[in-house]
Amino acid sequence: MAKIQLTSEENENLWITPFVAQLTDDCRDFHEDFQSNSVTSFTHYASFIRRQQSSDKHLLNPFYAFLHLCSDIYLSSGRNIQTGAFIGRRILRTLKSIEISSGQSALREFLYLFCHNNLSLHDYFLTNLRNYFPKVSDPEKSFFRMINKVSIKYARTNRKLETYVGDHLQQIENALHIDSFNKNKKSLTIINRDEELLISAMNYSVTAGGKRLRPLLMMMISDLFNLELKSILPLACGLEYLHTSSLILDDLPAQDNSDLRRGRPTLHKTSINNDIPENLFEGRAQLTAVDLIAISMRLINHGLVQNGFSSQRVNQVVDEISLSMHDLCIGQMMDLRAAHMGIEKENELVDELDHIAWFKTGKALEIVLVTPAILAISSSTVNNQSIDLNKIRELGRLMGILFQMRDDLLDIEGENIGKPIAIDIKNNTVTYVSILGIEGTRQRLKEFRQKTLNLINECWPSNAGTIKDVVNYIVDRKH
Amino acid sequence: MAKIQLTSEENENLWITPFVAQLTDDCRDFHEDFQSNSVTSFTHYASFIRRQQSSDKHLLNPFYAFLHLCSDIYLSSGRNIQTGAFIGRRILRTLKSIEISSGQSALREFLYLFCHNNLSLHDYFLTNLRNYFPKVSDPEKSFFRMINKVSIKYARTNRKLETYVGDHLQQIENALHIDSFNKNKKSLTIINRDEELLISAMNYSVTAGGKRLRPLLMMMISDLFNLELKSILPLACGLEYLHTSSLILDDLPAQDNSDLRRGRPTLHKTSINNDIPENLFEGRAQLTAVDLIAISMRLINHGLVQNGFSSQRVNQVVDEISLSMHDLCIGQMMDLRAAHMGIEKENELVDELDHIAWFKTGKALEIVLVTPAILAISSSTVNNQSIDLNKIRELGRLMGILFQMRDDLLDIEGENIGKPIAIDIKNNTVTYVSILGIEGTRQRLKEFRQKTLNLINECWPSNAGTIKDVVNYIVDRKH
Repeated sequence: MAKIQLTSEENENLWITPFVAQLTDDCRDFHEDFQSNSVTSFTHYASFIRRQQSSDKHLLNPFYAFLHLCSDIYLSSGRNIQTGAFIGRRILRTLKSIEISSGQSALREFLYLFCHNNLSLHDYFLTNLRNYFPKVSDPEKSFFRMINKVSIKYARTNRKLETYVGDHLQQIENALHIDSFNKNKKSLTIINRDEELLISAMNYSVTAGGKRLRPLLMMMISDLFNLELKSILPLACGLEYLHTSSLILDDLPAQDNSDLRRGRPTLHKTSINNDIPENLFEGRAQLTAVDLIAISMRLINHGLVQNGFSSQRVNQVVDEISLSMHDLCIGQMMDLRAAHMGIEKENELVDELDHIAWFKTGKALEIVLVTPAILAISSSTVNNQSIDLNKIRELGRLMGILFQMRDDLLDIEGENIGKPIAIDIKNNTVTYVSILGIEGTRQRLKEFRQKTLNLINECWPSNAGTIKDVVNYIVDRKH
Repeated sequence: MAKIQLTSEENENLWITPFVAQLTDDCRDFHEDFQSNSVTSFTHYASFIRRQQSSDKHLLNPFYAFLHLCSDIYLSSGRNIQTGAFIGRRILRTLKSIEISSGQSALREFLYLFCHNNLSLHDYFLTNLRNYFPKVSDPEKSFFRMINKVSIKYARTNRKLETYVGDHLQQIENALHIDSFNKNKKSLTIINRDEELLISAMNYSVTAGGKRLRPLLMMMISDLFNLELKSILPLACGLEYLHTSSLILDDLPAQDNSDLRRGRPTLHKTSINNDIPENLFEGRAQLTAVDLIAISMRLINHGLVQNGFSSQRVNQVVDEISLSMHDLCIGQMMDLRAAHMGIEKENELVDELDHIAWFKTGKALEIVLVTPAILAISSSTVNNQSIDLNKIRELGRLMGILFQMRDDLLDIEGENIGKPIAIDIKNNTVTYVSILGIEGTRQRLKEFRQKTLNLINECWPSNAGTIKDVVNYIVDRKH
């Protein structure tokens, strides 16, 4: 399902043949199975749709899977005409057999159930394609173009998070590595040495692992807006650098004073292969954080234009990022103040925690969601009217709050996320759990999850399964 | 001389009348005075030009001063036609009397000497204007347009530094004050309070005084390229914020560990009206430094586009700035390493000091010189071919080295620049003086001054007196 770039190596596709056969059978026998209460992927999905539950859970549409696999086989053959005719006949015969065995209304119902979120595909099958039923040995090219486009987009935007990570994480990790900017100026050996002290520190912190949730989320949004992933890589990396920069600063003694980050010494607590003495550790960490901002600005500003986005859009993206940085500073200031000075009692405590989570975590999510949307507005690949930036911003806020509530629960439940357990409690910080209790926090988490999933449905009706999976991951994660 | 925006209040111009009379006389009597070795502003300037010394010193051109004052009187009259005729007659009669008393070649020589750096004005006087000699009672409007344009530009770009500061410092200081970004969102009182903690800290550091040499230099360059000063204010302020940000970070305990900056406590050593407890001082200072970068990016990126510069140019400017920030981080890393680890003996020591001065100080000057040049390239007000960005970059490098050499001398000479005397020596840092000695450093300073002034002449032939004055200020300053 997840393979987008296809090779002509037919062997690679041998494994899918049994699936296609099974799906073909289940598709053809759908009505019979449904009446006899047999559970197949088709009947399961159909009863799911009938119960109108598509909003809160993400279930694979087996008909799209079937079409995608067919399309995959055709493309893998190098668009071989005989393979195409064979596959086309199979799809047409499958649909035709529904009409033959159960009548025309059965086919109509089938298409209603399995193409409910894609009107153009539904209409294509119902009107254009049925004309080909008499001459199934001659499928036309536009037929494959249609099912290919639909099924690939469906496959891209509804992968499970785990699959998505498998497909893209390496691409992100590779792109994140930072090289010298001055390395071509051979004469400047003095500069090279000091630049190297900063670049190795940047790479130490940038490659410290982490889930890369932000760049992955940005890619998911880009998929939904039909942006080419390669073209937005500078933005994905740049925002990850800004995130890393903020972590380096947060960890400093004057702020959160953390010695460890993801199980490794924080940058102000370490040299890299003994490159500097201990009295330079913290100074280097501070400079590295600022340098990451510089490198990030350069990469985003220069890289996006190089990748073909207009200066106007890039300008708007840089605008968004600078406002977001400002808000993140406010968020960290809130957090520092709350930790050291306490939260004033007269304020609505949960509201204040929501504000902190919004500014400290939500803003960093909002920016990866909203910037690809801004870039997409200019491109012709998307209907501009359909992008509501405010809804996307709200999505970032909700995800930030979900994140923080789950973190607070995890602290209590004693799971380790790379920093000493329950540090927030030790420091006497007010948390969701300390105000709402464990059960109260769990209940609120559940409500906010539903709210978030509903919002995703509003933004991308039934088409953003992977992002829903991210929301579920945030809420259900164990560390 | 310095007044650019003229009012119609004629009284304001009464003070210039004696000067105009004196200049008229000296202009008319130039040849006679020159032969009799009388010293007037005209003969002094002429012998100066003849000795081809225009490169190393900046001397006021008295003929331009005369023209500018005439133009000033005309404009102050609200372009009154009778005043114009009167002034025009005076200029024409003055030049005519040179030809009458000393012959046509004398006028030719006069124009050669006093318009040597402005061919169009020279030709205008020599060909067009002499046609009006017979009918001096009827000067045409284009005559004033010509002398006005030339004399105003001359006046703008050749003011003494002190005059320039008087004209523009207040404008800069006013623009530097930072307001809340979220203040219109009334509901967010929690956010407002934390934003205020950052904004008051930013303003504390930004308004700590300082010479504002960077924004002033940027304005001088903008004057030379005929950019409107108001339109580049966001850039001037934004770069000053970045500079302030780097000072806040440099002063931190883990870097230069300074408790004072310009005689006031550094940000990590103070609250602002007791707004935070002491254990938040340093954390707030770190966040403030980052927030200044964010505010700066926003102001430059958004403000320049709003002021009519194209997104492409602004994009290029942001590019330059991010590379400059990266280089400044390297410069500060060099400085830290040199201070804590020493300079390795096998390197050419003076070269290394030059590199540090270039990256630590020169890059911060280069960016204010080069960005208005980039903005000017797109505008139609300047001949693109005439802007050589590499020469302007080199100017920044030289000025950075001049700055550092003079600082090292001042440390030895015991002058106080707001930080404890001779801190560099106390810390055992290698300086220009410790390598070259006092006399050696003075000698090198002199050579570099000459090199810098020559470069300015190459960039703007005889037209950048104010910038030359800045160079002389850097070298001659006593604190």
